[in-house]
Parts: sequence; structure tokens; C-alpha cells
Amino acid sequence: MVHNKGLAKSGAARHKWAADHMRTLAVAAGSFGTARPLGGVRIGFCLQVTAETSALIMAAKKLGAQVVACAGNPHTTQDDIAAYLASSGAAVYAWRGQTRSEFHRCIRRVMDDSPDILVDDGGELSILAHTRYADLPVLGATEETTTGVRRIRALGRRTALRYPIIAVNDARTKAMFDNVHGTGQSAIDALLRTCGVLFASKSVIVAGYGPVGRGVASRCAELGARVSVTEVDPVRALEAHMAGYDVQRMDAAARTGQIFITCTGQRSVITARHISAMRDGAILANVGHFDVEIDVAALGRMAHSKRRIRRGLDEFTMRTGRRILLVSGGYVANLVSASGNPPEIMALSFANQIRCIVHLARHGRTAEPGIFGVSSAIDGQVARDALAASGVRIDG
Amino acid sequence: MVHNKGLAKSGAARHKWAADHMRTLAVAAGSFGTARPLGGVRIGFCLQVTAETSALIMAAKKLGAQVVACAGNPHTTQDDIAAYLASSGAAVYAWRGQTRSEFHRCIRRVMDDSPDILVDDGGELSILAHTRYADLPVLGATEETTTGVRRIRALGRRTALRYPIIAVNDARTKAMFDNVHGTGQSAIDALLRTCGVLFASKSVIVAGYGPVGRGVASRCAELGARVSVTEVDPVRALEAHMAGYDVQRMDAAARTGQIFITCTGQRSVITARHISAMRDGAILANVGHFDVEIDVAALGRMAHSKRRIRRGLDEFTMRTGRRILLVSGGYVANLVSASGNPPEIMALSFANQIRCIVHLARHGRTAEPGIFGVSSAIDGQVARDALAASGVRIDG
Amino acid sequence: MVHNKGLAKSGAARHKWAADHMRTLAVAAGSFGTARPLGGVRIGFCLQVTAETSALIMAAKKLGAQVVACAGNPHTTQDDIAAYLASSGAAVYAWRGQTRSEFHRCIRRVMDDSPDILVDDGGELSILAHTRYADLPVLGATEETTTGVRRIRALGRRTALRYPIIAVNDARTKAMFDNVHGTGQSAIDALLRTCGVLFASKSVIVAGYGPVGRGVASRCAELGARVSVTEVDPVRALEAHMAGYDVQRMDAAARTGQIFITCTGQRSVITARHISAMRDGAILANVGHFDVEIDVAALGRMAHSKRRIRRGLDEFTMRTGRRILLVSGGYVANLVSASGNPPEIMALSFANQIRCIVHLARHGRTAEPGIFGVSSAIDGQVARDALAASGVRIDG
Amino acid sequence: MVHNKGLAKSGAARHKWAADHMRTLAVAAGSFGTARPLGGVRIGFCLQVTAETSALIMAAKKLGAQVVACAGNPHTTQDDIAAYLASSGAAVYAWRGQTRSEFHRCIRRVMDDSPDILVDDGGELSILAHTRYADLPVLGATEETTTGVRRIRALGRRTALRYPIIAVNDARTKAMFDNVHGTGQSAIDALLRTCGVLFASKSVIVAGYGPVGRGVASRCAELGARVSVTEVDPVRALEAHMAGYDVQRMDAAARTGQIFITCTGQRSVITARHISAMRDGAILANVGHFDVEIDVAALGRMAHSKRRIRRGLDEFTMRTGRRILLVSGGYVANLVSASGNPPEIMALSFANQIRCIVHLARHGRTAEPGIFGVSSAIDGQVARDALAASGVRIDG
Repeated sequence: MVHNKGLAKSGAARHKWAADHMRTLAVAAGSFGTARPLGGVRIGFCLQVTAETSALIMAAKKLGAQVVACAGNPHTTQDDIAAYLASSGAAVYAWRGQTRSEFHRCIRRVMDDSPDILVDDGGELSILAHTRYADLPVLGATEETTTGVRRIRALGRRTALRYPIIAVNDARTKAMFDNVHGTGQSAIDALLRTCGVLFASKSVIVAGYGPVGRGVASRCAELGARVSVTEVDPVRALEAHMAGYDVQRMDAAARTGQIFITCTGQRSVITARHISAMRDGAILANVGHFDVEIDVAALGRMAHSKRRIRRGLDEFTMRTGRRILLVSGGYVANLVSASGNPPEIMALSFANQIRCIVHLARHGRTAEPGIFGVSSAIDGQVARDALAASGVRIDG
Repeated sequence: MVHNKGLAKSGAARHKWAADHMRTLAVAAGSFGTARPLGGVRIGFCLQVTAETSALIMAAKKLGAQVVACAGNPHTTQDDIAAYLASSGAAVYAWRGQTRSEFHRCIRRVMDDSPDILVDDGGELSILAHTRYADLPVLGATEETTTGVRRIRALGRRTALRYPIIAVNDARTKAMFDNVHGTGQSAIDALLRTCGVLFASKSVIVAGYGPVGRGVASRCAELGARVSVTEVDPVRALEAHMAGYDVQRMDAAARTGQIFITCTGQRSVITARHISAMRDGAILANVGHFDVEIDVAALGRMAHSKRRIRRGLDEFTMRTGRRILLVSGGYVANLVSASGNPPEIMALSFANQIRCIVHLARHGRTAEPGIFGVSSAIDGQVARDALAASGVRIDG
Repeated sequence: MVHNKGLAKSGAARHKWAADHMRTLAVAAGSFGTARPLGGVRIGFCLQVTAETSALIMAAKKLGAQVVACAGNPHTTQDDIAAYLASSGAAVYAWRGQTRSEFHRCIRRVMDDSPDILVDDGGELSILAHTRYADLPVLGATEETTTGVRRIRALGRRTALRYPIIAVNDARTKAMFDNVHGTGQSAIDALLRTCGVLFASKSVIVAGYGPVGRGVASRCAELGARVSVTEVDPVRALEAHMAGYDVQRMDAAARTGQIFITCTGQRSVITARHISAMRDGAILANVGHFDVEIDVAALGRMAHSKRRIRRGLDEFTMRTGRRILLVSGGYVANLVSASGNPPEIMALSFANQIRCIVHLARHGRTAEPGIFGVSSAIDGQVARDALAASGVRIDG
Repeated sequence: MVHNKGLAKSGAARHKWAADHMRTLAVAAGSFGTARPLGGVRIGFCLQVTAETSALIMAAKKLGAQVVACAGNPHTTQDDIAAYLASSGAAVYAWRGQTRSEFHRCIRRVMDDSPDILVDDGGELSILAHTRYADLPVLGATEETTTGVRRIRALGRRTALRYPIIAVNDARTKAMFDNVHGTGQSAIDALLRTCGVLFASKSVIVAGYGPVGRGVASRCAELGARVSVTEVDPVRALEAHMAGYDVQRMDAAARTGQIFITCTGQRSVITARHISAMRDGAILANVGHFDVEIDVAALGRMAHSKRRIRRGLDEFTMRTGRRILLVSGGYVANLVSASGNPPEIMALSFANQIRCIVHLARHGRTAEPGIFGVSSAIDGQVARDALAASGVRIDG
């Protein structure tokens, strides 16, 4: 069930472009040679239906899997990709703009097809597999996201998990590169597209110095910005200080910053009090977590008027004439206003996925149930895949 | 004569956004206080009619000038900006998509209004002032571009120049920042928008290590790319080598590069021979000079097929299946596929303009004719304007 | 028992200089106000007797402790510092150039004084406390080094540990800063002092991309070197690749490198096979682990002649005339040929020490025996101490 | 006439080490093949007699020149190098610690030998050639230093210059690399050796943003320092601002800086007023110009007491207890407390020398008298020599 089967050709072209730039995934999948380690295995995918995920799904198919897929998010399905997957023999239940009930019905359709392995983005399939579909035999599952891992851990506290679930999200080859390189680059991209301002000489405040903040801070500094960091964890604050950044309280930073980028994963990082202190023309962007890092509601209440400057950029004018600019409505800017993670980075994550799926197909039956990290053997093998994809050879 | 006077309101909003981000210009214009140094002076502008140039034109108006403007390029006029300028009392002869003869007729309309000072982008007005309008009294002129400076120098070899012409293009406060910071940033922007690839770990070949190449090379390296430089000037090659880049011949670089960025200002930097040697998936972009740095015609001839991947990105497939990707059709990618120079950088150029215009209004009558650089006094004053716009105070 | 009590005055001056540059330690010690949390506690120190450790010992004294100290290494005692400590009321058994039996006798003298808390650098005191002095009541101990932690873990496998031992070595505020910033800077220092060569444009091979390798690689790159990395761990290799370094096998790197810096903590990183392939004039330095990373014996056997160029630099000439330069005899160059960690970095470690010592004095009696990391509360508090010492305030 | 001929062997070894690291000079000299373009030419050298200059002198000898040399500075002669040169057949009049009259007598001894070409470091020989030795036939001269160029220009205003003098000092291949890379690196070296402090997180104030300041600022930033720049030239100040540095007045910087490095070439950059405002423990170093950038006399008057911390580092204590640390007594720290320019950088300068000397031997007789820069042909050729010495090949 897709929006329009006629879009398959356009989807095929976009699938190919993405797959071409995800060589690490191709190397990982190719490592199994002509063996079909997923022959006779049915895999249920509940992921965002995009060009990049189609590369994962088609890789699984090539290894012999039967595939059934639904959307992990009702609003992000790329209809041409869905059509392409359907035309390639996958069972697909996904179209952009599903209603809440359509969304959930499609997820159940995947479970109705009795998948052996579940590939989750948000824990939807595994939650069903412990409730409504508790008698469905499952070899194992993988989970792509932090949110999904959190939901599955919560599930595991309420009930005994029935099968092994691998938290792909926590693989070193995913987390280290995703955050520093993927988000680091795409945050810059989002700011260039929406604001088009010069970074050189600007005072940029980076809130949070975890991996995302480190990536964002270094890229801004390298473009010539003067970067200050705010952090609540003193060890991370000391890291930022030793790396040569000014470390400040947000109350102090609010008075001097020209561009603010929140990267904390926390809520209420920039509040009404901070906004009150800001300079005319200050730009606020969030690349951290949902839309809770900047208090957008407060900004709306404080403003006398609001106007759209361009796609992804709104200007709020205070009664005093002071203006504050908000990027992407406070939503994660690198996803909303740029292309998100580059395909080379997604490939690292999906190479973990394909190797974990094969591992579950082979060993899921005898493995202990529970939630586990990616084994260091698989993690290391994915790093080798990535190096091989770049033609790099190492010792040992 | 503009396309549609009804667009004035939208033009006003975009004018304001640009002007707000060109504080250096505002500081320069504001330095004359309530004096109207351009009172009674008529200025003819022949510039690209964009939000940024409207900031310059309105600044001149505020200083007392009467303004008459035409387009410096028949295809780039922003019609809403033209409407806004007309609604603000300027005489405007500009609309997007002029025919060649309309374009020239509009330029003559400006000259017919007998401007005292000419502000040129390409030398059009000054050339007329030495031919058809040779008896028009002119106090002086400014010229914004390299091309215009070259044309005026050629004119000066054929005939005696009648008035002082200031080559704003060569001001230190323009050239140094334009190239390194403006093009450096916008080149990255263009590649992110059109290709969306990860820079980290990529082999990037930067052709040319002048100011543009320096800016591009350092920004790529900072995003994690492995940068090699090609250069024909041995001193610049040595500079690149000492800065830590691999310096290579293009023949060697062609075999290993994944992204090629030409920044030389020369023609035939990447030729059929180089393209033949390139890896599958190599990306070619030009941020240097017109569309002559990459031999696009040869690429077309070598290709078996060509398809558009997305706006600004074409894929050429050779008979062997090898693919080469071309950004912006080989045209200057940061102008065509990104927003060009950020407004903060344009403001440096236009602060030079406004100060030179005032200088000509005051001293043009007694100054020697000829073509001159911006005086170091004005150049230094513009740097002070920029520092003041950023709230920076210096000694001395 | 010190070499010469007359050296106390010189020792006092050097103590003061070090203490002045270890403000983080001063803040940590000062946080206890006028309370004397170590009042009535006897502490046995077995550390290298240097200006920096004297700052720790005197800080403990100021908090009320009685102090007895011996040398953790028979060859590194600074006799003036020993004299200064003795003159300040500490019992000191340390002089440079102790014989093996003198060294061990001095350690036993410390234990004979019945210390309540042991501060170890290599595990000497704790090993005695579980053998010859097994009936001595001990509140707890701290251990400064990796080697000591390893020895104590081995001890713990042979026998039940009698008291809590805190592995200060593993504190985030020690390890993160020690390696990246301390060794990163001092490695450069050692190479500048011994070789005096230009880094700009040089091909530098960094073996190992752990924290030390990361610090060394980035500092060399920033001085203009072209840096390649060798690594046996594929995830770390991928990190280096994504950071923009060339990643190679040592066999390949050996042929092109001009300066080799080993940072692996492993043995036999550079062997006869690699040395055979190297260019004339290649420089070899080790900042990793003892003198086992470079096969110095093989180098000696391969060479036709050897001469000392200057302190810390030897030239080995092969029969073919090819020359290889060895820094610091292959010993850890940043300790042997530079000043080792700057005092600001040592202060982080010693702030952990003083806070752990006070913690043991307060809670050692009731704490479980075993070997533990520094608690995240103390670790975070030391980061706060360091930020306070720099005048940095953070949120939260 | 040298101090001790017995030192020749030690001098030979040190000569060889320097020459080995000056490959650019070797390539330049080697480019003349077996031709002896200096055959029958007598060259008078008045340079600092060091291992590096011996490489230049011996290169000239190898090309056929007869050599006579004296010291350009009475205090810096390396006696073993002088002995080595004498033992190799040069006429040498140099020893360390000459009296003023010995120094001048030796210079006259060189002129008495009737050199055809003069190689000057300070203009001593050329001044004599226009006064006491005004009838000596001279083909031409070269001048290594800024001071010498200034003196010769002054001479040229008093009298007609008799022969062509090439200002090697101004070659692009000298000035660009000398300042940014040579002084950039050696300034760091001097601070590490004398102070041994951690750069990471320190507030460093760089006074002056010419080529030296740019090199110093970037190297400090890369070691993790937070760098502020002071500058009196607004264009350079804007450059520093756009590069991401905080730009401040010295009065403001004085209150926050922890390390001050003067790079201005001006006097009285740091005065009593600034010193009064500084923090306890501030470190002052000059890498610019003689000892006039920091007002050392004022510092001495302000201090209650002064003590030597170690070679190259003095501590001045004010009545209030506040301490200020002075590196190298305010003299150019990278010369006094480090090894000055690395040999690879000196080689660039001396490759210009040898090529200019050969040029004068060939064309001096017919060339116009006056003072000239190095021709862009020779400058470019030296860049090619340097690239060849590194094995780098370029297009064109």
C-alpha cells in the first residue's frame, strides 16, 4: 500500500544515488559473498522510508530476506522510495501524511506478516511484540534510535524481554561519527541555508559540549567564529575550556552572542530570561533534541509581531524593536532545514544494522533475551568495512 | 520603469533584512552625521539590482543624492527590489529578463539623466561617458569588479580618461575578505546544497592557491577533508606545502581526488585528460572564473549519457560505467548554487563605495583624471567602520 | 634522611613556583576552609620527589596531616625539594641515586612510621601493606599510575585487599587532560629541543590514535605538518581517517615519513623491517611506553656507526650512508628530553589526590575494601576546582 | 684568524648537520651542475658565523669562489665553525667576544682582500665600499637583513650607490616563510623552554597581526589557548577579527591576559600603565624587535624585587605581592631562548643568496647600480628549489 506506484522509477534513481554513497553498507553486505545468510528469513522494518533506508532494505533483500516495511514516522515517507521498494518485491505499507490510525494500522500489518527479525526506529515493533503480538515467535530485533532504546529499556522493566534486541544506536561506529561529523556538518548546512550569514568573526554560543556540541563548536570556530560554550557538566566544561573555548554561563553568553546553537539533549536551555537579555538580531537554532531546548512558546509570548523571513527562518520583534530570529521553528534544524546526516554517515549505522541482522538470523535462536549493545567484534568489523570502502589499509 | 510596482512591499522587507546585516555600510554612511555630503549630487548606478545593492543605493539617497539606476546584468534583477527603489523615489530602469537592446537602452537612460557620479559594475557607464556621452560633465566614477577595472584600463590606453575612477574592487578591505571569507564559506555552502556529501575523510583537490584557494582549502580541511593543492606558481605552491597540504600535479591528483574545486581564474584547469583518469563518482566544482576552468564541453563529449541528479548537479556516465558529477554546470558554483557573498562581506565593499562616492563629490572636481585604487585612508576607515559595526575597539 | 639539608632554600623557591602554577590543587585544598580534615592523620607518600609533588605533600600538611615520604623512583629525586620538605617538618627518606637496597629500605622506613593513608606511585606501599606489614592498620590508599593500578589488581587476585584503594590514575579529570593536552604539548617540546627541525611541510607519522596520539597528531598538523596515522584498532583508525589524516600501514608509512612518533603503549611498533625502508634523515621518537615501541636494539645492530648529535639525539649511519636519528634513546621523549606534563596538568591529578585522601580520612574506616575508581562526585568537583582556578563559572 | 684551529673537527660535524637540513640550498647550488659559475670570483662575507651560514659559505666555495669572511656580530661567532671554515681554505677573521675595534678591524681585513662580491648582514661591507674603500671595484652585493637594507637606503640618499645591491631580505620566499613559519614555531619553542606552562586554556595576548603575529597567534590557538590580538592598523585588526580572534585594546587586554607576546616591530607596546593593570603571574615575551617592545626599564622601576626563576625567565615582584614574569629580558625571545629559525627556513634565505651571488657574478658588471629586490625569476626559482628538495612536483 503506497501512494502512487508510478513513482517507482524516480524512486529507483534516488535509491541508486544514495546506495552509491553508502559504500560502507555495500562492503558490509558484500562481505557475505554469494552466501544468502538471510535466505528464508522474514524481516519487518519500521523505519523512516527514505532513499537511505531503502539502501538498507534492498541490501537485506539481496542477502535473501523477505521484506515487509512500514513507516517509522507518519510524515517523512518519501512516496517515490516507497513505490520503488514495492516495485522491487517488498511488502510496503507507507505513504506520506498518514493519519495516526493509518500509521498504527500499517505497523500492525507488518506484525501480521510474522517477521522473524524486527528492525525498529522508536521501538514500535518490539512493543507490539510484547503486547498484542506476544505469541509471535521472534528471533531478535535491532533498534536504531536513542528514544527506541529508552522505550525498550522501560518495557524491559515492566516485563521480561522475549528475545535479544541489539541497540545499534550505541555502536561506537555509529555514535562517534553520527554526532561529531554528521551533525557537526549538517548544523552548519542548516544555518547557511536558512540565514546565509557570515560565520567569520561572529560570536557563536554553543550550548552543550557532548559529541554534538564538540562537532558544532569546532566547525564554527574553523569558519572564523568566536565560540563560547555553556555546559552544566563540569568535566565537559573543563574539556571545552582546555580546547580553547570561552566557557560561560548562559546568562552571560546571552548578552553577547550573535548565534546560539543548542546541542544539549535537555529542555529549557534558552528561556525567556535569556531571550530578554539578547542583542538585536540574535539567531537561535537547535540541533539537539526535539523542540524543547529553546522555549519557543515564551518567545512567541514575548514578541509583539512575528514574520517569516524565508523558509526555516522567522523573525520575532519585541515591543522595543529588538528582533530575535528563530531557525526551523526550534525543531532540530539539521533535520528540518538541511538534509540531515550525509549518506556516508548513515552507511555506518546501516552497516551495523545489516551485520546485526545477519548475526540475529544465525544466533538469535540460541541467544539470551535482553537488550544488548553491538558487540565489539561487529563494531570493529564495521570500522573495517568503512576503511575498506575508502581504500584504507591498516596494520593488525 | 520596473516590472511591477506592486512588488514594492515585498522588496522593502527584503531590503530591510539585507540592510540590517550590512552594518559596516550603515556605520560608514552614518559617519557623516546629519551633513548631506551628497546633497545636490546626481548618481548613476549600473549595478546588479539586488537586496544588497539596494542598501547602497538607499544609503546614497539618505546622504542627499538623487539616484538613477539601471541593471548591471540583464538577468539578475530582483523585481521586488526594483519596485521598492522606484517607490522610494529613485529613477529605476531595470527588470529581470531584459533583451540585449532593452538592457543597453536602460543604461543610456541613466546617462541621459546626466549623473555627476557613476557607480559601475563592468564599466558600462564609463565607457559610454568616453564615447556617446563624451561631453557629459562627470565628477568621477567607481568600479566594483575586476572585469570593469580591466575594461577601463583598456579604455585608458585608447583614450585619455576624463575624470578620476576609483577601483573599489582592489581595496584591501574588499579583496582580502571577499575571497578568503566570502568565497571560502560560499563554496562550502554550494557543495553542501548540491551534493550533500560528507567532507570528513574525503580527498579534496583544490586547484589554485590564491586567496580563494586558501579560503576553500582551509575550510575543507577543517571539515575533515584530506586536501591536496595544485598550483602553477611555485611560490604559492610552496605556501600550500608549508601550510601542510599535499601539493601535486593535476595529473596525479586526478587519479585520487573525490572532490575537485577549481579556484584559479585560469582556463582549462581540468581537461579531458584529467577527467579520463578520475575515479568513479568524482565531483567537479568551479568557484573561480566563469565556466572556463573545467572543460565542460569535453566532459559532455566523453559521456555516454547525462542525467540531472538535482538542481545544480548533473551526472555524466562514461561508456565504462564510470560517473563524473558536475556542480552548477561548471559555472561559478558559489554564485549559482549558493547565495554568493554573505551580506557582511558585501557591506565591506559598499562601505568603500559610499566613502569613495562622497570623496568624489567633494574632491572630484579638482582631482586628476585616471584610474586609482582606493586610498589607504579610506581603506583604513572602512576597516574601522567594520570594527565599529562589531563593537571592536583598537589602539591607535 | 636527605642528601643535603642546605639545599632547602633553593627547594623552597622551586616549590613555590610549582605550587603557584598548580592553582587547581590550591582551590581543591582551599575548599576545606579552616577545617583540618587531615588533623591527626599520618600519610605515607611514595612518589617521585619533585617540585610538583612537594605541592601535594605540603597541601596535605596544611590540612593537618603528619607526613612521611620516600621516593617512588631511585633516580628522579630532586635533592633540594627533599631538603625543603624535611625542613618543613616532613619525615623524608629520599635522595637521588639510591641503590636498590637503599630504595627499598626507605620505603620500609615509611611503613615503619605506621601511616594511616598510603599515597602510591607504582603500588610499592600497598604491596608491603599486604605482605610484610599485613597487620598495620590502614584507612585506605591512592594510586597515581597505570602500572601501580595493574600491580594492585594483580595483588587483589592473589589475596583479599585489606582497605579501599582509589585509582586516581583513571579519573576523567586526569586521564582526559594528561594525555591529550599534557603529552600533546610536551611531545612537541621534546622534538623542538632535541631536533630543532621545522614541522611545517614535514611528513609526520603518528603511530597510535588513542588520546596521546590524538593530541600529538593534532598539534603536529597545526604546526603545518602533513600527518599520517597508523593504528591497529579499526575504530580508532576510522576516527583518524574521519579527522582528515592519511591512515596507512606502517610498512607504507615507513617509506615516506620524515618524523615518526610512537604513541601506542605497545611494543615493537617500529621494527628492523620498517627502519630498513626509511628515508635518509628519518627521525624516530617515542612518547608512548617505556623504550619498547621502537626496536632500538635492532637499530643499533643495523648501524655501521653511531654518533651523538646533541643531548637527546643520536645519529645511526647505515653501511649505505643512510642515517636514522633517534630521540632520547627511544625512551619516553617528553619525560626525558622535555619537562613532562606542565604543572597545570599535574594539578588536576593532585587535586584528585587531595580530595581522595580527605575522603579516605573521613570514610575509609567504614568503606568496603577493594580497588575503586575516583567517584564521579570527586571527579566533577575537581573539574569545578579547575574551572574556579581559571575564573570560569558554569550553569548548574 | 680564529680562536682555536683545533675546533675544526667539531665544527665540521655541526656544519654537516646544518647543511643536511638545508636541502633547498643544496638544490639551488646543485642546479649549476659541474659549472663553476663563481670560479675566479672572490666573495667577502660579513655574516653571523654559525653552522647555517657555513653551509652558504661552503656552497659558494664549491661553486668556485674564493672566500673571505668576518663576523657580522662580535658576540655570536661559533668558534668551532670559524675553525672549520679556516681549515677548509677560507680566509676567516672571526672569534667570539671581539672587542669593538677588533670587530671593525676584521671587517676591514675582508675589504683589504678586494672581494668582488659582498654578502652583508647589516650593511657593514657596503658602507665601507662607499667610504674608505670607495675605489675598490665591486661587482655587486647582497644584504640579508631589514636593518641592513635600511642603512643602505640611507647611504643611497647621501651618495650615489656604486654597484647593484640585492635586498635578499625582501624575497617572497624569505619573508613569507621566515615570519609565519620560522618565528611562529620558534616563539612557541622559546615559551616552552623558559616557562614550561600549558598553553591550553590560557589567555594569550598577541600584540601585532603582521606575518609574525599571524604565525604566533595561530600556533597558540592551535595549542588550545584563547587568543586576543591588539593591533593599531585597522585593516590588520579586521583580518584578526575575521580570523576569529578577540581584538582588543591593550588596556583591556592587559587586565585579562596570562601570556603576552609582542610581535609589532614597534616600541613601547607594553608600558608601565599596562603592567600596572596585569594579573598576578602574567608572562611577558617579545618576539618582535630588539628589546624595545616591552618597557623593561619601567618594569624594573615598578618592582620591589626581582629574582631569576631559571635561564631566560625573571620574576618581578611588586610591593603588593603581584608578580610579573619576563622572558629573555625582553630581548627577542625566539633568538635568545630558542634556536631561532629552523635550518629549513634559513635554507630558503640562503638559496636566494647563492642564486643572487651567481647572478651578480654573471651580470653585475653590466647591471645598473642601486638597491633592488630579488627578481621574481630568482624568487620563483628558489620556490622550485624548495619544492624539489621536498620531492614535490607542480604543474606549469
